[in-house]
Amino acid sequence: MTVLAEEKNTFYNYLSAFRNITGDAFVFTDEESLDKFAHDETENLYFLPDIVIKPRTAQEISAIMKICNGNRIPVTPRGAGTGLSGGALPHKGGVVISFERMNSILEIDEGNLQVITEPGVITEVLQNAVKEKGLFYPPDPSSRGSCFIGGNVAENSGGPKAVKYGVVKDYVLNLEVVLPNGDIIWTGANVLKNSTGYNLTQLMVGSEGTLGLVTKIVLKLLPFPKYDLLMLVPFNDLQKAGAAVSAIFRAGFMPSALELVEINALKIVSKFVDSTIVPVSDEMEAHLIIELDGNHQEILLTEMEAIAGLLEEFDCGELFFADDAQQKAELWKMRRRTAEAVKLAGYTIEEDTVVPRAALPDLIKGVKALGIQHDFEVVCYGHAGDGNLHIRIKKEGCIYSLNNPDVVPALKALFQLVKSLGGTISGEHGIGLVQKEYMNIIFDEPGMQLMRGIKKLFDPNNILNSGKIFDC
Amino acid sequence: MTVLAEEKNTFYNYLSAFRNITGDAFVFTDEESLDKFAHDETENLYFLPDIVIKPRTAQEISAIMKICNGNRIPVTPRGAGTGLSGGALPHKGGVVISFERMNSILEIDEGNLQVITEPGVITEVLQNAVKEKGLFYPPDPSSRGSCFIGGNVAENSGGPKAVKYGVVKDYVLNLEVVLPNGDIIWTGANVLKNSTGYNLTQLMVGSEGTLGLVTKIVLKLLPFPKYDLLMLVPFNDLQKAGAAVSAIFRAGFMPSALELVEINALKIVSKFVDSTIVPVSDEMEAHLIIELDGNHQEILLTEMEAIAGLLEEFDCGELFFADDAQQKAELWKMRRRTAEAVKLAGYTIEEDTVVPRAALPDLIKGVKALGIQHDFEVVCYGHAGDGNLHIRIKKEGCIYSLNNPDVVPALKALFQLVKSLGGTISGEHGIGLVQKEYMNIIFDEPGMQLMRGIKKLFDPNNILNSGKIFDC
Repeated sequence: MTVLAEEKNTFYNYLSAFRNITGDAFVFTDEESLDKFAHDETENLYFLPDIVIKPRTAQEISAIMKICNGNRIPVTPRGAGTGLSGGALPHKGGVVISFERMNSILEIDEGNLQVITEPGVITEVLQNAVKEKGLFYPPDPSSRGSCFIGGNVAENSGGPKAVKYGVVKDYVLNLEVVLPNGDIIWTGANVLKNSTGYNLTQLMVGSEGTLGLVTKIVLKLLPFPKYDLLMLVPFNDLQKAGAAVSAIFRAGFMPSALELVEINALKIVSKFVDSTIVPVSDEMEAHLIIELDGNHQEILLTEMEAIAGLLEEFDCGELFFADDAQQKAELWKMRRRTAEAVKLAGYTIEEDTVVPRAALPDLIKGVKALGIQHDFEVVCYGHAGDGNLHIRIKKEGCIYSLNNPDVVPALKALFQLVKSLGGTISGEHGIGLVQKEYMNIIFDEPGMQLMRGIKKLFDPNNILNSGKIFDC
Repeated sequence: MTVLAEEKNTFYNYLSAFRNITGDAFVFTDEESLDKFAHDETENLYFLPDIVIKPRTAQEISAIMKICNGNRIPVTPRGAGTGLSGGALPHKGGVVISFERMNSILEIDEGNLQVITEPGVITEVLQNAVKEKGLFYPPDPSSRGSCFIGGNVAENSGGPKAVKYGVVKDYVLNLEVVLPNGDIIWTGANVLKNSTGYNLTQLMVGSEGTLGLVTKIVLKLLPFPKYDLLMLVPFNDLQKAGAAVSAIFRAGFMPSALELVEINALKIVSKFVDSTIVPVSDEMEAHLIIELDGNHQEILLTEMEAIAGLLEEFDCGELFFADDAQQKAELWKMRRRTAEAVKLAGYTIEEDTVVPRAALPDLIKGVKALGIQHDFEVVCYGHAGDGNLHIRIKKEGCIYSLNNPDVVPALKALFQLVKSLGGTISGEHGIGLVQKEYMNIIFDEPGMQLMRGIKKLFDPNNILNSGKIFDC
């Protein structure tokens, strides 16, 4: 949806006001600049904004929001644009607020194991900065080399390490937020426990930029674990690979990553990154990647051996231990680039299902059956340890768009399956534009009404990232 | 505040309707029954309800709420009544809904390391039930032998193990909730990661029974750690004990408990539980209790020795290792019964301050200065590892009541200090009735307005635990 020319002109009336706030150099209306903000990593969606603003401070954002709120100008907050649900797309036109200039790590607080950062810092840059002090910020989405920490907060991102260390929400202690009316609040305090009023911090995390614009983030850190081991295990049967996952936890092990990659995804990504590190055999249906970390190498070895023994019951093939940092890096590169590779291979539609981990074999079985039923090719991969299975589908001649009648019935059936298994439709990507039609599969009307009510409370004029998660 | 006789009679008009819902045997109006629900573990507060109802199911609660909501009858949800902020007190009269009959553990899901429970289960009963399966539910408030898990969810409780394992909010995956209008919702899904809409689950946790009545709780579990070690360390200087705390974490250790007890609290509790396990010397100002847990005994020993070495720099006295289960139990009994002992010794007013842990020495110093300034005797103890310091005060002739002019200025000064150190006024007890006057020290008006708006959204008639956390 692009806005009418008349409305666009109205937005342009405020250009000089915006320029007064940030300086001329940081307000953009030229085609090339706008184009960059019209898409993210979501399949086939393109919505041009009218104006892009790159503020430097919460105070500048506050001033911008006062104008936009007073004049009903749609605002879309934007991190690095690596999102997979269209959350940062300006589908109603108006103003995009880009956080790219708010990219300072403000304080690494070694005494309290905390970091205070602006939202425009690249996640991996933040991780490396705290690692230099021996500290650890675990959440590591595949896009960590390019995504912003602010976007991670907006989407409540995960990544491989979530299985042991939790997701972004488990690290956010406090947030500075500009509300849609321009008010600036802190949501909590810089403390590890807090029973002081409603948890506005956790309400903000994962709210996909619909309730406020996060301008400072206080994160909990951990000591960096000294060692890690990585093992790759092929399985003859995809469902047995899924079943092996919950057996590992039931036996008392707590891997720092437990990833699953189906064989056809592996073939595609092996070619894509030009790697032969993983032997690909046609007898194999899937691989698990298992990482252990901790401060005692000998214990990791003992535990990994015990896990290996346990996996034999699940019809696995020959185990492969990554011997050195280079092999580990190569294995992780393959895993991290899987989504990109299979997307380029035509599997453009990615789903982000999550179920209780013991339901993984049922989910996999159901997904395969649905693929046949709806005539889609399907690949699965993802964070099996926490039941978060990414499913990518393709069909000859089917180009993705919102509400594509070829796709909607298949996704509805998929999400009904996920719901019946105790799961939900997004584990770490968010709802954004692409999943909002399916929210009512997960939430009954009273729950949806509460969410709409919260949105209305924070944003009575419905200007901030309006139409994401749900319509209101 | 007790209600007028006329209003009380109005409430009584609905007695037969309530009896139709639960059966006659579970609706109470006799004086003895009502008296039991007029107080909790908070200092000196007493408010009689008009009616006590003990329902068995969410459906019964839904039916009760429809009547109360339609007729503006105040409702106060009630767990075991062990709260320390007056959250379960019916200060507006009306109906108390007691969860004591909703006390079944519904399912221990070993495949997914989850438990589904009703809210009226005693926390320790739940912990023991999952422990029998080798599983671990860590949050362990001092009252765990009598408090209900539902109350723990309402208050976002902590306990000693929070320092390593987090608080209740870190374990709640999904909740069944009866809303004030009688609607029944599930807030999320039974999954470890969830980016599907606003986090209603986390909004409910710690909302002190003001937004809905939790009727089923899905908790994440961990494998139970096989070993633990316990050490007691005396310090000549209270502030140095506080400083030692953050040094332990900075050195990369992650104790499963790190508690502080000031010497005068220790003297009182030693006498109270008739124990001489801790030698009490007048040269000592405080003790730290340090617990490590894990699956490898030899590593725990190595780490505990390293911690002991590190503590020498902080002017500590002779270390005491608990040799066996009995000694450990005795040390923990002393710690767990400290609050009760010092309360009986006249320190009736307990505060629940929390700061970033490195600010602990500054907090302790400031608390002592405020005690002298406001002429209060002060004892400190608590969960030093996560910066959560309980402070109890007494003054000759000062009997606590809400808004006592002797107490209010001292608490205001204390909370302003806590705020200036980056902390907040409640780490694990909640705000309830006793802290609500101080909420505006922590939150500016826009934040308070959001909280009031959320309350109004969930409970437009303001009938559910109204006047807790804030007035609205």
